[in-house]
Amino acid sequence: MALIRSVFQDELDSISQSLVDLTAMVSESMSKATTALLSCDLKLAEEVIAADLKIDDYQHDIDSRIIDIIARQQPVASDLRALVTALRMGSDLERMGDLAHHVAKIARMRYPDAAVPTELVETITAMGKAAIKITDKTGVVISTRNTEMALEVERDDDEIDGLHRQLIGVLIEPTWTHGIETAIDITLLIRYYERYADHAVSISRRVYFLVTGKFAS
Amino acid sequence: MALIRSVFQDELDSISQSLVDLTAMVSESMSKATTALLSCDLKLAEEVIAADLKIDDYQHDIDSRIIDIIARQQPVASDLRALVTALRMGSDLERMGDLAHHVAKIARMRYPDAAVPTELVETITAMGKAAIKITDKTGVVISTRNTEMALEVERDDDEIDGLHRQLIGVLIEPTWTHGIETAIDITLLIRYYERYADHAVSISRRVYFLVTGKFAS
Repeated sequence: MALIRSVFQDELDSISQSLVDLTAMVSESMSKATTALLSCDLKLAEEVIAADLKIDDYQHDIDSRIIDIIARQQPVASDLRALVTALRMGSDLERMGDLAHHVAKIARMRYPDAAVPTELVETITAMGKAAIKITDKTGVVISTRNTEMALEVERDDDEIDGLHRQLIGVLIEPTWTHGIETAIDITLLIRYYERYADHAVSISRRVYFLVTGKFAS
Repeated sequence: MALIRSVFQDELDSISQSLVDLTAMVSESMSKATTALLSCDLKLAEEVIAADLKIDDYQHDIDSRIIDIIARQQPVASDLRALVTALRMGSDLERMGDLAHHVAKIARMRYPDAAVPTELVETITAMGKAAIKITDKTGVVISTRNTEMALEVERDDDEIDGLHRQLIGVLIEPTWTHGIETAIDITLLIRYYERYADHAVSISRRVYFLVTGKFAS
């Protein structure tokens, strides 16, 4: 029994490690998408767009392994909850990959023009950095189950919300001269970064709940 | 054994019925949100916003029941896949409820003004109707596992995409006189309807895959 238990534990650890690896892939994707967007780098945008398939495949593989573990090991309730949570974290990460891909697609669509006007570059740069910071912390939260850091991720998300408000403020100023099409792009970009961060927060909340049995908010 | 199997089948059917009920709740929410948006009905918008908690609770309840069934029944691989798919359909539906709630929040934010300018009312009405049509078909797909209808949902989604392009076309016309703030609202509204429909398509694809073992696209 001790041996079976240990094999099972190894399998859980391996799933957790794969989720950490997927988090790193997603973080790299968003980081490159932001660079592609702000430096009008078509090649880098294409790279992010192509990498999305790898992220999807990686997540599908994790999914299949989790379902296989549930079917073979018939885990007790608490282990089953951890495995179902892992399924959900995989979905969150896959969606984060999609959102990085959406950012890259806006960069590609406007190339060789810049989708982001010069006066917004600083704020979008800050948004990208905040998104990556949240993702990287989320990777640590998955790996270490550190509940303090899970709460930190929640707070870091407020930074994204603040930048969101700041950007919308610039768009609706009477001094905005970049027209409607750019305003639409920026509105969608803000939404993508915001949703990306929401999913990271959601993962941290799931870990927090798994460890403490309580909701983080 | 036959008896246990039958109890299990009843439990699966009951989950399926609850997902159909949740689909109806979500459809009603989006229908009311669209009415609230287009008729500037604050009371109705508040109703949709309040109903979102009920949708969330209903989904959490389905989730718990599914996990409980997996823990107690230790289902074989195919039944396990059906249960995991049900978990995912619940998440899709919960998210569709969120998106209806977002539409209602834009209606509330702009009240007593209209968020949607008169010349866009017809297209947004059509978008709302298409979203409801897709949701209602999705309910039938969950209930009957009709794969033909699952493919229909996929095609109906093209209608939403067409309306999306049409609306963006109006926004970027030089004749657009409603300013940036309204353009931002419309951009977000389009995104909400589109994502709402995407989740319905995703549910139909999940059913299609469960029944045929093949991907719908």
